[in-house]
Amino acid sequence: MTHTTTELAQALVDACKAGREATHAMQTAIYSPDAVSVEPQAMGPEGAEAVGLAAIQGKGDWWYDNHTVHSLETEGPFVHGDQFTVIFTMDVTGSVGPMAGQRFQGREVGLYTTSNGQITREQFFGPPMPAA
Amino acid sequence: MTHTTTELAQALVDACKAGREATHAMQTAIYSPDAVSVEPQAMGPEGAEAVGLAAIQGKGDWWYDNHTVHSLETEGPFVHGDQFTVIFTMDVTGSVGPMAGQRFQGREVGLYTTSNGQITREQFFGPPMPAA
Repeated sequence: MTHTTTELAQALVDACKAGREATHAMQTAIYSPDAVSVEPQAMGPEGAEAVGLAAIQGKGDWWYDNHTVHSLETEGPFVHGDQFTVIFTMDVTGSVGPMAGQRFQGREVGLYTTSNGQITREQFFGPPMPAA
Repeated sequence: MTHTTTELAQALVDACKAGREATHAMQTAIYSPDAVSVEPQAMGPEGAEAVGLAAIQGKGDWWYDNHTVHSLETEGPFVHGDQFTVIFTMDVTGSVGPMAGQRFQGREVGLYTTSNGQITREQFFGPPMPAA
């Protein structure tokens, strides 16, 4: 059975709202094994890009392991052809590194690309960095 | 002078917040003459795509001419490489056609692509259409 972009988009939003386990299971079900995830900026030595479903799920595990999530809201989806966007609003406290103990709120937009009934790419948009 | 993606993004958001005249002037200043604008669905006989700055500004004029704008909020920008996204929240009443006299609220995401210091493409994402 092939999913439409709207079906994939709704499944992603529902899973993100349901939390960590549901998100992991959704990714296994509807992400391409070769999917690529790209952050706005490099996150440490791994760089900005995670290639493959295992790397994407590993990134999600790292994030959940290293943040206390006070709230994570997911709004959308907003659809256009074979792509869709989702708005994330988060309120978290970091537990390691420079953000340890720091509570912060953020908002970002995720842009997802689908192909042949799977999600093949996710790309995150964040607030502009201050000019260097 | 070449603008960075963040500069273009901030200029677009500032102009959208300032309203119709500022938006038109901003488009003249920082859109490519060959820019393309794509709606989620075809809007009447013109289809979903407007090609060229004149067509894009014509679409904006049509929209402002045919809606009473109670509020139009612009949030962002959210940046990723040579692209950025903006969230629009609108409260309008249609003045012609099937929407004449109908007040409605909507939210959409705009995805913008830049190249050589200009905006070259805008693409709008809206709520999924009900399944046929």
